[in-house]
Amino acid sequence: MAFTWPLRVYIEDTDAGGIVYYANYFRFMERARSEWLRALGYGQEQLRHQNVIFVVREVQAKYLSPARLDDELLVSVAVEQSRKASLLLSQKVWRKPAEERPDAAGPQDYLAEALITIACITQTGRPQAVPAEILKRMTAGAAYPSEPNDESQEPL
Amino acid sequence: MAFTWPLRVYIEDTDAGGIVYYANYFRFMERARSEWLRALGYGQEQLRHQNVIFVVREVQAKYLSPARLDDELLVSVAVEQSRKASLLLSQKVWRKPAEERPDAAGPQDYLAEALITIACITQTGRPQAVPAEILKRMTAGAAYPSEPNDESQEPL
Amino acid sequence: MAFTWPLRVYIEDTDAGGIVYYANYFRFMERARSEWLRALGYGQEQLRHQNVIFVVREVQAKYLSPARLDDELLVSVAVEQSRKASLLLSQKVWRKPAEERPDAAGPQDYLAEALITIACITQTGRPQAVPAEILKRMTAGAAYPSEPNDESQEPL
Amino acid sequence: MAFTWPLRVYIEDTDAGGIVYYANYFRFMERARSEWLRALGYGQEQLRHQNVIFVVREVQAKYLSPARLDDELLVSVAVEQSRKASLLLSQKVWRKPAEERPDAAGPQDYLAEALITIACITQTGRPQAVPAEILKRMTAGAAYPSEPNDESQEPL
Repeated sequence: MAFTWPLRVYIEDTDAGGIVYYANYFRFMERARSEWLRALGYGQEQLRHQNVIFVVREVQAKYLSPARLDDELLVSVAVEQSRKASLLLSQKVWRKPAEERPDAAGPQDYLAEALITIACITQTGRPQAVPAEILKRMTAGAAYPSEPNDESQEPL
Repeated sequence: MAFTWPLRVYIEDTDAGGIVYYANYFRFMERARSEWLRALGYGQEQLRHQNVIFVVREVQAKYLSPARLDDELLVSVAVEQSRKASLLLSQKVWRKPAEERPDAAGPQDYLAEALITIACITQTGRPQAVPAEILKRMTAGAAYPSEPNDESQEPL
Repeated sequence: MAFTWPLRVYIEDTDAGGIVYYANYFRFMERARSEWLRALGYGQEQLRHQNVIFVVREVQAKYLSPARLDDELLVSVAVEQSRKASLLLSQKVWRKPAEERPDAAGPQDYLAEALITIACITQTGRPQAVPAEILKRMTAGAAYPSEPNDESQEPL
Repeated sequence: MAFTWPLRVYIEDTDAGGIVYYANYFRFMERARSEWLRALGYGQEQLRHQNVIFVVREVQAKYLSPARLDDELLVSVAVEQSRKASLLLSQKVWRKPAEERPDAAGPQDYLAEALITIACITQTGRPQAVPAEILKRMTAGAAYPSEPNDESQEPL
């Protein structure tokens, strides 16, 4: 039951190979994380004022199939593991099947998967536990506003 | 009666000054132009296959007020002038007023304005007239799908 | 007698059209401006601590010929006009001729030219005059370290 | 005996947190890989014409300490492991110690480390063995032009 965010591939995202530049998947995944926090009720500026800052400590990603100009992508976020002062998030990127192919996305549409370790720190950089209320909402799932998600689907 | 596209400011768009990096407004404006073409019925990949390529020849932009993290922006596109093998487009960027301030956007929300000269070329780089059907749709205006636009408003 | 900064085109700078993405020329020009300030003896962090902040207020750019992957570019900066609380800078981008063609760069190597208006503001955003010592060094020219520039040449 | 490439942090690389945006380290690492290939005698455009294309299949990165505006960074590349149709590269990013601190870089200057899996494919996307001559040069090491490297140093 992952949160899923849709986005479109623009020329700015591509490279001379005709595909999305590999570093830009991390932009896409960060957009999905930001919207996930927003859907849970948190803006990042607001959290910063409450002395709660999330920073990326570690990433692992596999590139399975390339995204191209005009593709409509879906990016998911789910808590894989909750640790003392950090979270292990699982993120997936896949291509929304074109309307002409109303059948489920094929394996060629499953583009990338990543594990992202997010640490929770204070403004002075000290590690701190993820506030209980935030963690509760993050792991409760399911309660996302349906609007941006009703068009999404989990890859098999 | 300009086409208007909404977008959100993410961390990737900002710089160490705490505001959106100046070059990134051109990304935002290009996203709006791509969605404008799409709303008129044209994908850029599809146009390329028809040997119709739009390239940016000249830009002029004024930065009036900075955009910040989490801001929701609106970017407009309108044909200012149609020439032989090029178009002069007028584009504006403003901040969507927060829901707490349901009154119209103030002058501090009017962020940037630009004139963009787009040339129409073939795949071998030769200038060509904008195909009549495309030009007609571009200048007809008004017929945009209302969904992404009904929340937009023109700056005064 | 313009300051000139060399840089290389990497995959990150290109787009699916096989050329440098139009907004990225503004990154290149900002790199040249940063190095120009550094060559004059100023780091931007240091200037910020002295309450001197330069921000871009207006840009005009013409794209004359595209840059491609692996190209080595040269970007110049020169003060075109000095105003009360702002500077009008002239910037040019051209391709360094390949060693196989030791003759001067041809017109196809002259890629872009721009006029950039830089305002000088305080940390609270108020306009202020460019400090006299900075302005003097900016307009004195000629005294740049020759090392990164000796391989550069002005387009005709 | 790793290849090392120097680069400077510009405003474009930073985000509203005042540090280099996490995805941009992958740009930096790709620049170092491109310059490594160039130092070995290969341009990427030239390799593409020879039907040899390197693509990123997998990345792992740890962010240890943040880079900031004006920092001068060093990015290394070394072959960790050579496989049938791919290479495992080890890349490190650290801050060049300021001249005022002529002692070796401290642990706070060791910024990031990554393992990057690069696959060798043909233009139609089929995996192929890394050509023997390229692999030989990649693993021979040591013969890099000293000029951009003489100022570099390996972290302990």
